[in-house]
Amino acid sequence: MPSRLPIPQDMAALRALCRDLPTADSAAGSAIAAHDSQLTKPPGSLGRLEELALWAGQWQRTGRPRAERVDIIVFAGNHGVTAQGVTPWPSDVTRQMVENFRTGGAAINQIARVAGARLRVVEVEDLRPTADFTHAPAMDEATFLRAVATGMRALQPGTDLLCVGEMGIGNTTAAAAMCAALFGGGGARWAGRGTGLDDAGVRHKAAVIDRALAHHAGAGDPLEILRHVGGHELAAIFGAVLAARYRDIPVLVDGFICTAAVAPLGVMAPDGLAHARLAHCSAEGGHAHLAAELGLTPLLDLGLRLGEGSGAGLAVGLVRAAVACLCGMATFAQAQVSGRE
Amino acid sequence: MPSRLPIPQDMAALRALCRDLPTADSAAGSAIAAHDSQLTKPPGSLGRLEELALWAGQWQRTGRPRAERVDIIVFAGNHGVTAQGVTPWPSDVTRQMVENFRTGGAAINQIARVAGARLRVVEVEDLRPTADFTHAPAMDEATFLRAVATGMRALQPGTDLLCVGEMGIGNTTAAAAMCAALFGGGGARWAGRGTGLDDAGVRHKAAVIDRALAHHAGAGDPLEILRHVGGHELAAIFGAVLAARYRDIPVLVDGFICTAAVAPLGVMAPDGLAHARLAHCSAEGGHAHLAAELGLTPLLDLGLRLGEGSGAGLAVGLVRAAVACLCGMATFAQAQVSGRE
Repeated sequence: MPSRLPIPQDMAALRALCRDLPTADSAAGSAIAAHDSQLTKPPGSLGRLEELALWAGQWQRTGRPRAERVDIIVFAGNHGVTAQGVTPWPSDVTRQMVENFRTGGAAINQIARVAGARLRVVEVEDLRPTADFTHAPAMDEATFLRAVATGMRALQPGTDLLCVGEMGIGNTTAAAAMCAALFGGGGARWAGRGTGLDDAGVRHKAAVIDRALAHHAGAGDPLEILRHVGGHELAAIFGAVLAARYRDIPVLVDGFICTAAVAPLGVMAPDGLAHARLAHCSAEGGHAHLAAELGLTPLLDLGLRLGEGSGAGLAVGLVRAAVACLCGMATFAQAQVSGRE
Repeated sequence: MPSRLPIPQDMAALRALCRDLPTADSAAGSAIAAHDSQLTKPPGSLGRLEELALWAGQWQRTGRPRAERVDIIVFAGNHGVTAQGVTPWPSDVTRQMVENFRTGGAAINQIARVAGARLRVVEVEDLRPTADFTHAPAMDEATFLRAVATGMRALQPGTDLLCVGEMGIGNTTAAAAMCAALFGGGGARWAGRGTGLDDAGVRHKAAVIDRALAHHAGAGDPLEILRHVGGHELAAIFGAVLAARYRDIPVLVDGFICTAAVAPLGVMAPDGLAHARLAHCSAEGGHAHLAAELGLTPLLDLGLRLGEGSGAGLAVGLVRAAVACLCGMATFAQAQVSGRE
């Protein structure tokens, strides 16, 4: 682990890490743009693929970006707010699904295999639930910093591209509460159906969020919001994506919960999420709003609302193709293809 | 080659093939829907992936669809209408790019490799240009039927999924002329920048298309429109996608030119394109209109405007993931995951 990325021991140290972020490698970016302009295609004709190759290279700090080793990390956590009846699924399902990930039976296992990505599952805080944030901070400072550190330590050397995903019964409520605290609009703007609420359930979830916001009014900066109404796996995702910035690893962010988890980084620094791309737009109601608030344009829009990193895993092939085109295509001169008349 | 798919020897025989199309396997569809409902995910949470798995199975006529062997076929052709100055690129580029495909230097080579797909290039009518359709039919009947047959014969046994792509300097003009003839609105609605026209170039292209339409007014049914203002590679794409319907092979259709090439099938029969999915929405102006006319919802929207089958190749991973989830996920019972409370 590079010494320039210490594990923060207090909130102030974490805050400093978030505000003094490494910037993109503009020399790598210039080299990529120059090479791209020579390739056998009309300029700009690969659309977002060209942008993805440039992005990968700028953050990997090379004119020859790679997308060989791709890690998908699913962070799992449990939520005390489930006591408020915000989901029809029992919290046991979090652990059962972790077991399903381990034995290869979940959607993300199939998606990771198709993507040629390595899948790992991290049980944050051993799946102990957070405190019910309608009447207490979800995490005390020590627990929060430990969860963030769990995410930071989850990165492995040699990773070309990181995908973050999550599993946690109740976590759309935590994500929606974070969005409401960060961007306003109350529970009604951010509460969605999650894994299958009906209209009355969504209204109840919004009311629970509004109660939590009233309780934590003035909680503080985005990091404090993450601690007060986030969750263990959200804090770990935040830590992983923060660490990726320091380790020169571009990141594909999955759906609503992952985007909410990293939103504090985008709020605290103008380009805090520049090393990340939003893999897809979830069918979960609040995700499109959240993407707009953060200025993120999703790569895919397939009506997914599963989590697990499923959308991020599906977008891996796009990054691979982008990098392959940049690094593998012939130039006009090499292929002896005529230019415009 | 199954005997039920004869190569049509005249326009009437081709017309009959287009009107008496095989229908989807509804029993396979029911089996897939029933199995999907048991898998360890909230119902509907995989969004369009669920629809893609169902589609693949219904057209492969099995409850266990496959996407192992994927063929990308790039049909190349040249266009007499280039004499009208509709593109800044010389027609020689078609042959040069075919050579680039053969030696592995084009974008589609990289995309096919990442997708794990087999790539083939078919030079339709040996790259002889069509007639300039501003004053003559692009193809006489014999040439047209031969080009369609070239496409039909290009399919190989054992293909699970077919991607069609194209290369042909001038072919956005042919595609736009077909759209204008099929759906109205004149050249101005359908002419786009192609490989890089400026505003004046687009206006000129639209005027060329309007002249062609005036010349061929009353050309006849959609097949006659394809013959009069299409092109060799468009006719071959049409033939390949028609044959795929009879061979139980689902198809990913690439951008504007490929969609225009298969549009006659969608116009002649209400479900004529049901075995196809539109891989992406091209940045070429007319494509979004064309998709709407045909009722097709693209899988990807990445600002591509290259052709070659690039968008179709990028969408292969989505179909693979869809099929992998359907066939590889555990059921709630198998994984001992609790249901809703």
